[in-house]
Amino acid sequence: MELYFTNSENIAETEAEFDSFESRHILKTMRKKEGDSIHFTDGRGCLYLGRIVATKPLLKVQHELVKQLHWPPPTLTILGIGFIRPSRMDFLIEKTTELGVNRFYIFSSHFTTYFTKNSVRWEKIARQAIKQSNRLYMPDINISADYKKFINDISSIQYKFIAEQAASKKVTDILKKNLVNVEDNIVFIIGPEGGFDTNELNLAQKQGFVPLSFGEHRLRTETAAISAAFYINLLKN
Amino acid sequence: MELYFTNSENIAETEAEFDSFESRHILKTMRKKEGDSIHFTDGRGCLYLGRIVATKPLLKVQHELVKQLHWPPPTLTILGIGFIRPSRMDFLIEKTTELGVNRFYIFSSHFTTYFTKNSVRWEKIARQAIKQSNRLYMPDINISADYKKFINDISSIQYKFIAEQAASKKVTDILKKNLVNVEDNIVFIIGPEGGFDTNELNLAQKQGFVPLSFGEHRLRTETAAISAAFYINLLKN
Repeated sequence: MELYFTNSENIAETEAEFDSFESRHILKTMRKKEGDSIHFTDGRGCLYLGRIVATKPLLKVQHELVKQLHWPPPTLTILGIGFIRPSRMDFLIEKTTELGVNRFYIFSSHFTTYFTKNSVRWEKIARQAIKQSNRLYMPDINISADYKKFINDISSIQYKFIAEQAASKKVTDILKKNLVNVEDNIVFIIGPEGGFDTNELNLAQKQGFVPLSFGEHRLRTETAAISAAFYINLLKN
Repeated sequence: MELYFTNSENIAETEAEFDSFESRHILKTMRKKEGDSIHFTDGRGCLYLGRIVATKPLLKVQHELVKQLHWPPPTLTILGIGFIRPSRMDFLIEKTTELGVNRFYIFSSHFTTYFTKNSVRWEKIARQAIKQSNRLYMPDINISADYKKFINDISSIQYKFIAEQAASKKVTDILKKNLVNVEDNIVFIIGPEGGFDTNELNLAQKQGFVPLSFGEHRLRTETAAISAAFYINLLKN
């Protein structure tokens, strides 16, 4: 199934419109025409089947609702990521969204060397990734310049892990204990290149984050993040 | 520890030389000078400590052996990958080498749209990745235009998995059974975009490959490959 996306505010009861980015993709790249049927999601758990009724100025469809998952998502899969180089961050967002992350916190911390408040690019990448992986939840992307505030904000999440190469616990230790279906929110936070400083690590531990090691070998932030996203999948299944 | 690399043929008993790529990296980027000490590996399990004794035309060190792991690696972590777009393949090689893959087979199959016999670029990427993750094993990269021959060539590997979205077994099923340390060679093969055709899947199953699903959601080849590499780590730990 090819899946397309439009924001929920563009979806009325029987008609929906697509933005210029998506209209161009559907019409030019995928060569859809008036009368053709397409599947699309609002990224909030709804799957629609629509028939194209207009192509200019924007693509418009008449639609019916095919499937509706619970909104908000029943459990959260959260990644907290220290800012890294944009090209690597792009890849991280794409891969981890495919793997089912439905909330991001991108934070600035001691060893951060890059920072932007602009998440538009990542939202586009996430949109492509949910279409690719046939997911009906669009992740929301939060940007936080304040590590301390970010840690406090997410401290109520049930399962909290922080990546730390020197940690005595390994990812397999938790997995061996928890290979039952975890039906709760899980957050994994991963530092920028250079990791966390001691204060940051202590602060997270005080808030209940469990330091976990991916093994003795140093991983880049995006490699650890993709591994963490897949790891959360394993914990939840 | 910063780690550098030179081929074993450039390492004599007490002196070693670095190629122009690595010499430039060590001298220009890392600003090392005559007299400085550096760690380097031959990618075959040896870690050396050297002192720079010459910088022109190529960097030369006097060295001693610090650590020697078994060569060849005691167990193989193998990925078989259907060719994908070069930019995505670059990322795949980098991430999975960080995660400990020590042998690649990159194959052409029914749904392959891109093909090259040139592995030089990927060897450079793998070299950077072993340095990044402080690994002493350089993966070897094999390119196979013949899927059938490739499958036969690796059929003697003990644990064999093939990624198949529709498979009834999930990665977690195997993990639940095998959360003991698997001390044997493991291979995971992943198709190009579009996956495997029925004949290819049947051929692999006949040779003992177990079809495994990463879940109901479609993953891109490189996302499945990175997940597979992390998964093998979990099976081995």
